[in-house]
Amino acid sequence: MNKSLLKHINLPKDLRLLQQEDLPQLAQELREIIINIVATKEGHLGASLGVVELTIALHYVFNTPDDELIWDVGHQAYGHKILTGRKDIFESNRQLNGISGFPKRNESVYDSFGVGHSSTSISAALGMAIASQLKGKDKHHIAVIGDASIASGMAFEGLNHAGVTNANLLVILNDNAIGIDPSVGALKQYLTNVKKGTEKQDNIFEALNFNYSGPIDGHNLPLLLSELKRLKTVTGPKFLHIITTKGKGLKQAELDQVKYHAPGKFNAKTGELPLKSNIKLAPKFQDVFGETIVELALKNKNIVGITPAMPTGSSLKYMMETIPNRAFDVGIAEQHAVTLAAGMATQGLIPFCNIYSTFLQRAYDQVIHDVALQNLPVIFCLDRAGLVGEDGATHHGVFDLAYLNCIPNLVIFAPSNAIALRNIMYTVQLGIDFPIAVRYPRGRGHLLNWKVPFETIKIGKGICIQQGTDIAILSIGTLAKNVADAIKLLDHKEAVGHYDMQFIKPLDDVLLHEIFSSYKAVITIEDGTIVGGFGTSILAFANTHNYKQSVTNLGIDDNFVSHGTIEQLQQLQQFDAVAIKNKIVELLFVLNNG
Amino acid sequence: MNKSLLKHINLPKDLRLLQQEDLPQLAQELREIIINIVATKEGHLGASLGVVELTIALHYVFNTPDDELIWDVGHQAYGHKILTGRKDIFESNRQLNGISGFPKRNESVYDSFGVGHSSTSISAALGMAIASQLKGKDKHHIAVIGDASIASGMAFEGLNHAGVTNANLLVILNDNAIGIDPSVGALKQYLTNVKKGTEKQDNIFEALNFNYSGPIDGHNLPLLLSELKRLKTVTGPKFLHIITTKGKGLKQAELDQVKYHAPGKFNAKTGELPLKSNIKLAPKFQDVFGETIVELALKNKNIVGITPAMPTGSSLKYMMETIPNRAFDVGIAEQHAVTLAAGMATQGLIPFCNIYSTFLQRAYDQVIHDVALQNLPVIFCLDRAGLVGEDGATHHGVFDLAYLNCIPNLVIFAPSNAIALRNIMYTVQLGIDFPIAVRYPRGRGHLLNWKVPFETIKIGKGICIQQGTDIAILSIGTLAKNVADAIKLLDHKEAVGHYDMQFIKPLDDVLLHEIFSSYKAVITIEDGTIVGGFGTSILAFANTHNYKQSVTNLGIDDNFVSHGTIEQLQQLQQFDAVAIKNKIVELLFVLNNG
Repeated sequence: MNKSLLKHINLPKDLRLLQQEDLPQLAQELREIIINIVATKEGHLGASLGVVELTIALHYVFNTPDDELIWDVGHQAYGHKILTGRKDIFESNRQLNGISGFPKRNESVYDSFGVGHSSTSISAALGMAIASQLKGKDKHHIAVIGDASIASGMAFEGLNHAGVTNANLLVILNDNAIGIDPSVGALKQYLTNVKKGTEKQDNIFEALNFNYSGPIDGHNLPLLLSELKRLKTVTGPKFLHIITTKGKGLKQAELDQVKYHAPGKFNAKTGELPLKSNIKLAPKFQDVFGETIVELALKNKNIVGITPAMPTGSSLKYMMETIPNRAFDVGIAEQHAVTLAAGMATQGLIPFCNIYSTFLQRAYDQVIHDVALQNLPVIFCLDRAGLVGEDGATHHGVFDLAYLNCIPNLVIFAPSNAIALRNIMYTVQLGIDFPIAVRYPRGRGHLLNWKVPFETIKIGKGICIQQGTDIAILSIGTLAKNVADAIKLLDHKEAVGHYDMQFIKPLDDVLLHEIFSSYKAVITIEDGTIVGGFGTSILAFANTHNYKQSVTNLGIDDNFVSHGTIEQLQQLQQFDAVAIKNKIVELLFVLNNG
Repeated sequence: MNKSLLKHINLPKDLRLLQQEDLPQLAQELREIIINIVATKEGHLGASLGVVELTIALHYVFNTPDDELIWDVGHQAYGHKILTGRKDIFESNRQLNGISGFPKRNESVYDSFGVGHSSTSISAALGMAIASQLKGKDKHHIAVIGDASIASGMAFEGLNHAGVTNANLLVILNDNAIGIDPSVGALKQYLTNVKKGTEKQDNIFEALNFNYSGPIDGHNLPLLLSELKRLKTVTGPKFLHIITTKGKGLKQAELDQVKYHAPGKFNAKTGELPLKSNIKLAPKFQDVFGETIVELALKNKNIVGITPAMPTGSSLKYMMETIPNRAFDVGIAEQHAVTLAAGMATQGLIPFCNIYSTFLQRAYDQVIHDVALQNLPVIFCLDRAGLVGEDGATHHGVFDLAYLNCIPNLVIFAPSNAIALRNIMYTVQLGIDFPIAVRYPRGRGHLLNWKVPFETIKIGKGICIQQGTDIAILSIGTLAKNVADAIKLLDHKEAVGHYDMQFIKPLDDVLLHEIFSSYKAVITIEDGTIVGGFGTSILAFANTHNYKQSVTNLGIDDNFVSHGTIEQLQQLQQFDAVAIKNKIVELLFVLNNG
């Protein structure tokens, strides 16, 4: 086989010079490069492997970038990136100053719309298509969306509007029956029946006025090409249903689609994952949640668990396996998840609603209107709070403190370690008469011995970790570790007091009065936006009570944070241990010489 | 006709003692009381008139409050309130300390779930139904939802989940082809075809695994009763499609359903609305928006207008009438509206996306992820910002400043009067390279002569209205009027400086340095939450620049605000003119004697 096809393709215009019969070979080369790079550099694997043929066919048939191509979520766009000028820098994928793991407008004109969160593609493509109509531009607008994403409410809203337009919009449903975890819901069942032929083709999408075609095999390039060419000539909103296999072309990835969604490093030749190390690591916070909810729910029959499509990522899967009738994966439906929890809470259940911090943005109104306004005891467990690292700007959970802080009735807690997370979960299921948000980060903590007997946590109380003479540092959550590490770097450790405030809301007023009465300066630190966050609340406390100390707020400044390792990003945002230490030294100098 | 049926009904148990053949008379009495009270006390009319028969039938057939009944949105629940113990206090509807215009859990055990925003009922009822299953309780859970609300994404998410459960859930689609304005979208067209019989009954809802029945006449009590009784015996998720007429029973309300949605005072006998007064009033802010966008769009072909189901309320209807191809009512679909606007902005259009402040909470993620992160020049016009009065806690637009303030790239502007609103609209359509939120209140301003020649507004600049000697008052938006009125009440007017800051973000640093360098104390005032809002940003500015003055933040405290007139609520929240004056006097005393 001639191995040089991809080598000569830098842009889609090069691809379009190929003969149609060369494309299957190109597909194989594209798969190989994706596998080889992800195997060593890590990233999302399965989704991109599943759309290799579709990616080639779209760029072959349509005139990108003039025709607009939007990949929903964008996990699956690695092939697209490689074919659109980023082959040689693809190794920098998801790394600091490298290319983004998702399509991004300011990275390439071929990335028509920045993505990351699901189900935006239909609305964005429709907006473009309507704009083209108004501007008299004859071009195509294509949204590629998976079967998990199309079941989200936002996608339905887009379809519902598109169906009453004559916009030149093509929605391609990439149906592989899985998101990150297997898809769920009535629409998924329906699609399965369509595939089996037990549901007739006059279907939901036709009911919404789309010109429906399919389902067809999304790995059959000749079929894809002829169907896409035909659809180019069809006016108005069109819907193409293709069936693909996530992980296509790598046997293990096809067989274990959840694990190979983003498998970390693996053997590119065999697909094998490295053996687990024998070194005992501190647990991931998600597993602390996942194991603790099972432990508690086995004793407390009122506990239920809810996840919008993240059973694996949140580790609610443990409860789904152990107590399936009380653990619910509702699909990519954060709005529904929150109000479902509210409904359950009215009946005396104790819902733990686990949503990534960044995705709770999707259910903001429901948190205010359905939970907090009614003061219902829903427990929000916000995983991936703070900086998430390589997923970048679309996924950092840095707005939650600000957007939750202004909501009356809501308590906000950030555990500094696994034991605190366990204990707050234990505490709230004993009975609360308010809603609470518990936010914790992606990844692992530092405690190996975390399964210790439960203790209750007093609501609204902070903890003095170390008393000092000059400067008080008030941290929330796992940033207590950064502060502790910073203090270790100091010559004059005794100058610094350190307080793990635990609760962003309500603030521990008693402790704060003690602090402001004892220290010459205060530093706050949070892994959320400084605007409207924890530090701002401390400022407001000081102002209300007429304390005049200098207060320094460390946290995320008023810019979107890009991708990189969490450590790199903390350095850039100046709240890693070294930056904190430097800030302390600087403040001490001012205090002693100012 | 015996007129005494309703007189003897205080609770549904009384209703259930009636003979079925008495119920049409009760329906007539219920209509009369609704018409008579709304005619003099104002409120929502058409929706409640449309469901009089359904309301009676539900309480007759089901065992409320043990069976859970959720009215989506809740506009239509006046009959429900009257039949569930609130007949004698119904005259206090929507008044301060009176009953709420919407179902509210802490008002009555018959109000199973508090509502106000649309499309929550299916999720809440499903949560209750699952809870009942887990607790082994044999009861019914009923969501009544309109055809405008069911087209919202959140409702689809609820249906999609419900369809894979065997929960005892009954969804009743109250199909009157109108929300506040006529319904739109592909689903609406589909439902119309079902009604006409041109679409077969094997329909979308059956595809989602619901046991579908209907459509039936929702004003035919015997038919409703027999169908509801039958459905009580059907297991699993059920769907009943009923056809009703909004405003049923009052001729004018049936004929002009938009106007009689909430008609204000009218003649209860004839239905006639009072003649318009000849007194020239300052315009409503919504009309300043609505007229100005037409004026601008006639000249600037790139301007488009978007509303999620509020053409009348936002006054985008003027543009929909004048320039229909560039003005879009997308239905109750705030998420879609925002990302549609983002898609349009990528193509060089200038989208004015008009969403009530409280409803933008539904599209929070889209504002962050699709607009601000990509720095797309979308213009959000947030009507009904601040306190909205009688609609109460579900509708106050008081969180926007806090939840928008933390979003990078976004500019936030609050016009102090109609001219400023006009001028910012003029300014941004000349070309901006950032997104902006323009927030303005419900109701009328104070300027009669507002259609003056356009002037550009300098982004990020505040205005000195009056200089003073001791205290600077920094206001945003139309609260400048409260401040001006407060100053008029003072003996020592010269002590007070007044600044209309205009921009919440970016702050006018130059002006702020001037202010903090010149005054002994600063008062901020905003009609949003103090937590995370404008005043907090001023605190942060003072802290950053080491100004030590006392800063007093006036605004909404950390509680949900109930219903009442805007004036009453401003008094309660202590930022009406008198409260501001008192605060100034108190501060002056402290400054001069402290």
